[in-house]
Amino acid sequence: MPKIVDHEKQRQLVAEAALRVIQKGGLDQATVRNIAEEAGLSVGSMRHYFSSQAELFGFCMRLFLNRINKRVEAMNYDGPLLDVLKHFILQFMPVDEERRLEMEVWFSYNIKVLLHPGLKPLSDEMYDGLFRAAQFVVDMLDRRGLTKSGLNLVMETEKLFALIDGLALHHILRPADVTAASIEEIIAQHLKELCDPSKL
Amino acid sequence: MPKIVDHEKQRQLVAEAALRVIQKGGLDQATVRNIAEEAGLSVGSMRHYFSSQAELFGFCMRLFLNRINKRVEAMNYDGPLLDVLKHFILQFMPVDEERRLEMEVWFSYNIKVLLHPGLKPLSDEMYDGLFRAAQFVVDMLDRRGLTKSGLNLVMETEKLFALIDGLALHHILRPADVTAASIEEIIAQHLKELCDPSKL
Repeated sequence: MPKIVDHEKQRQLVAEAALRVIQKGGLDQATVRNIAEEAGLSVGSMRHYFSSQAELFGFCMRLFLNRINKRVEAMNYDGPLLDVLKHFILQFMPVDEERRLEMEVWFSYNIKVLLHPGLKPLSDEMYDGLFRAAQFVVDMLDRRGLTKSGLNLVMETEKLFALIDGLALHHILRPADVTAASIEEIIAQHLKELCDPSKL
Repeated sequence: MPKIVDHEKQRQLVAEAALRVIQKGGLDQATVRNIAEEAGLSVGSMRHYFSSQAELFGFCMRLFLNRINKRVEAMNYDGPLLDVLKHFILQFMPVDEERRLEMEVWFSYNIKVLLHPGLKPLSDEMYDGLFRAAQFVVDMLDRRGLTKSGLNLVMETEKLFALIDGLALHHILRPADVTAASIEEIIAQHLKELCDPSKL
């Protein structure tokens, strides 16, 4: 009689093993072989989950996207709008170990995309998701009538998005110079700068 | 009689071969073997130039630093200050093929640093150089008395630096969405935003 495998449970096992492998050695170590070994499964059985390196990276990136979505759903949306929007933005930034790992992998993944176009669709999906998050923030300020007059919303969306990724990169490279606290301070100041002081 | 080798000329040959290899296949392809082949030299003779992968990467990064320094020295510093500072900043941004390659390699190199601490000193040197460039811009605006009152110069330096790297990354990932022209427009607007309109 064939062994009955609980596929959902096994998938979860593989996901957790993949995260541990990446945590220890970066995305470059996330090979089918290494993840199978970490999960205590055979390399053959891993084929249920991914058939290529691109699919494996995609699998890992989706784990992170799920984590980010869960954090965004779970966060508290009560309180002053600028505070809420700042906390919303911080869900995507490497201000703790969990988010730091996500961001490191997101940067590594994007660098890989430059050489492996097959990875591009998922990179684009993430890029678009982060762009929409920046757009949500700028739109919220505008819809509540808080923005300065004459603000170019399209330009400010790209500026906010670039600021988020630039600060994230610098925090990863130089955590002692660009601290989690200074990231929070800069984001707060930037959001305030978008607003008309008389409307706050 | 031993062959007399013109070391400076050979070094230049190796440098150009390294650039071509990186251009074709990214930093991952910049191995001693590939560069030797491209330069038409033996692997053994490459030991004069670098004895490890870390040294090889360092060699490549220095080529780029030299190119950037040459551009900064050669640029025209006449004209309105905001224009001059914008053009100064654009020397570090991927607004043409030459600078695009430099920026791609700079990002790849930084991702490698996360796993190979031996590469950190040169990454830090580049980071510090780019930070000083942002600092120079903010300081110039301030020394000329153009900045808005109450501006936090330390925070604005990190903000400008993060904006530069974020825009550069987005342009590399999505050149059709974040164009060279829009980078230039955002940098110009940002510099203007740092200034008191009545002082411009």
